[in-house]
Amino acid sequence: MTDNPSDRYKNGLELLNQMHSEAGKGVVKNLGEFAPDLAKFIIEYPFGDIYSRPALDLRSRQIATIASLVTLGDSVTQLKPHIQAGLNVGLTREEIIEVILQMSVYAGFPRAMNAMLAAKEVFEELANEASKDHSD
Amino acid sequence: MTDNPSDRYKNGLELLNQMHSEAGKGVVKNLGEFAPDLAKFIIEYPFGDIYSRPALDLRSRQIATIASLVTLGDSVTQLKPHIQAGLNVGLTREEIIEVILQMSVYAGFPRAMNAMLAAKEVFEELANEASKDHSD
Amino acid sequence: MTDNPSDRYKNGLELLNQMHSEAGKGVVKNLGEFAPDLAKFIIEYPFGDIYSRPALDLRSRQIATIASLVTLGDSVTQLKPHIQAGLNVGLTREEIIEVILQMSVYAGFPRAMNAMLAAKEVFEELANEASKDHSD
Amino acid sequence: MTDNPSDRYKNGLELLNQMHSEAGKGVVKNLGEFAPDLAKFIIEYPFGDIYSRPALDLRSRQIATIASLVTLGDSVTQLKPHIQAGLNVGLTREEIIEVILQMSVYAGFPRAMNAMLAAKEVFEELANEASKDHSD
Amino acid sequence: MTDNPSDRYKNGLELLNQMHSEAGKGVVKNLGEFAPDLAKFIIEYPFGDIYSRPALDLRSRQIATIASLVTLGDSVTQLKPHIQAGLNVGLTREEIIEVILQMSVYAGFPRAMNAMLAAKEVFEELANEASKDHSD
Amino acid sequence: MTDNPSDRYKNGLELLNQMHSEAGKGVVKNLGEFAPDLAKFIIEYPFGDIYSRPALDLRSRQIATIASLVTLGDSVTQLKPHIQAGLNVGLTREEIIEVILQMSVYAGFPRAMNAMLAAKEVFEELANEASKDHSD
Repeated sequence: MTDNPSDRYKNGLELLNQMHSEAGKGVVKNLGEFAPDLAKFIIEYPFGDIYSRPALDLRSRQIATIASLVTLGDSVTQLKPHIQAGLNVGLTREEIIEVILQMSVYAGFPRAMNAMLAAKEVFEELANEASKDHSD
Repeated sequence: MTDNPSDRYKNGLELLNQMHSEAGKGVVKNLGEFAPDLAKFIIEYPFGDIYSRPALDLRSRQIATIASLVTLGDSVTQLKPHIQAGLNVGLTREEIIEVILQMSVYAGFPRAMNAMLAAKEVFEELANEASKDHSD
Repeated sequence: MTDNPSDRYKNGLELLNQMHSEAGKGVVKNLGEFAPDLAKFIIEYPFGDIYSRPALDLRSRQIATIASLVTLGDSVTQLKPHIQAGLNVGLTREEIIEVILQMSVYAGFPRAMNAMLAAKEVFEELANEASKDHSD
Repeated sequence: MTDNPSDRYKNGLELLNQMHSEAGKGVVKNLGEFAPDLAKFIIEYPFGDIYSRPALDLRSRQIATIASLVTLGDSVTQLKPHIQAGLNVGLTREEIIEVILQMSVYAGFPRAMNAMLAAKEVFEELANEASKDHSD
Repeated sequence: MTDNPSDRYKNGLELLNQMHSEAGKGVVKNLGEFAPDLAKFIIEYPFGDIYSRPALDLRSRQIATIASLVTLGDSVTQLKPHIQAGLNVGLTREEIIEVILQMSVYAGFPRAMNAMLAAKEVFEELANEASKDHSD
Repeated sequence: MTDNPSDRYKNGLELLNQMHSEAGKGVVKNLGEFAPDLAKFIIEYPFGDIYSRPALDLRSRQIATIASLVTLGDSVTQLKPHIQAGLNVGLTREEIIEVILQMSVYAGFPRAMNAMLAAKEVFEELANEASKDHSD
């Protein structure tokens, strides 16, 4: 756990690239063109400072993040890349669906339903990409 | 996974008793004296229907629940027994603190700070109980 | 439906006094000593402008208000006088409990549980007052 | 009030079909193809367990649900079929508009405004369907 | 500070027209065709009663409003005209971006990111209008 | 604006001490004994990274923070030290009351009322301290 800021950025960027697919990286890149400081802080604080801590594995962290985003309710745009990141760090589709299902208890059914439809879209987009790759 | 309602209740109650300590059981019991149908539904739906599903282990489920309650922000009363339940199903104190710390990113610092103070209270209460047991 | 502002205030205050018991009136009075403009606006807008409209009866309005306050989640202080107001405009205790129970679906179980405990406190306070009146 | 689970599902489905129009039924059906367990739980718990209870009439229940969804703020997708369901169980358009208007007090003006625009869309869609039916 | 209601409406409408650009005025006008009472109340209470008070300048008020709308999270539709209004009352683009950036601390990064993308859209729309005006 | 992490911490701590009174410093100190990493991140990110940026003066920042905390609704514990900090960076009591009043529009009346009662408590505590100092 080094404290050097350029290391925070470098470690954060590496972790962002490891965890996220093109959609998630695109969100940060898109933001960065308009608000470079917010993009820098996202890489440094959530990724460089928090996700890089060894106290919790990335699979567990992504469960917490998906649960939180379903509960916030208004962040479907942010939820979709995090569902993809969940798959990237080892969650199965069944486990992601299960976390969303459980959120009906704490965040209510409407937010669980909206989140489930977001998961459906992510999985359909992956199927479309896969079939496109296959037909090439 | 049986569908018989009395089994839903029985399974739910067993799981509630397995996961929760006295504080959590007390909340449901206290509610049950005033609003028995809500207490019954809590045992049947969250515990009997959701937590009992094998698709996700209880440790992962408790990470999701703690993340959701920190994000809701207004449910410290509910968060404290769930932190205790997290310990009961195998989360370490460090892991629970880490989930709350991560929530600073998604739910903001004020909600993460309030949740951290709730965790502090739970751990202090456990220390008090332990020292009381010891001095008997 | 007159538009004269002093009428808005007068009508609002009359409706506040008709709907709310001492607890609810006390909240507005307490506020009014510190922030008289907020107290004035509460009487004029929610009570004078909204509740006084004939398009919905007060019983239906109080169902909507209780549902909204349970969903906000953080306003137990505000929920309690509105539960009392619900009784005053003709809701039964069973109906109020039923609205809170239904909110488990939309606002999640933790907020429904917190609200149910608030209703319990209101009903206990009423029982205490009644027994005190009786023993006089 | 039978407790047999298949009865919970059957009663819930019957009530869902009685209360909701094609849009609402379509949401559950669409979800059911992707996440059949969530669709099953929606039919069993909100509809089979809660809405079917005689303690509150469906008109009052739909007032509570609309108030809650306006307050959640992020669930316009869920609000629209519930506005339609409100009409189906006997609320007038004026009453639905009045509930949304009242929510400006508790959920704030932005959420009341968003909800009002959702109501506008529902009523326009109904007018379009009616004029289409008429021209057939 | 007169109390005559037609003055409340007149003052409110004048202030709405002074603060908001076409987009913001359009929202109220659009609402007014469907729900004239909500449009009237928006002009009377937020604009006529609150914004017109001399206790706080419009630049400070718009900082508070933008911070609140970012925190609500679900009101991007409402946030965009208020960002435009912020520019109209003297906030610079850098200051608006800075308020949104600061909200990462209190409302969390997802809501700050969504709000930043809304600001980006507003500034792009202004650039498009400017270039269109220029080419005329 | 240096990037060296120990400078981030040092600058953040200096700013925290400059802006906050004993209550606010106590919250961070209290947290730091239990969760030193969260306390460190609070000093580094909100104070070291965000508040120290010259793009917005501290008075404007505190308006945004108070507006956000009123809107979150569940963070009265956090709101009180920030009201005190508002006074410390140059907001008058009337301006703070005005920001809270304005939040009735965006966050609804219940959250504005709760926040107003929190402001009342802060101002009363200051009066008590002042009279105590005087009597020494």
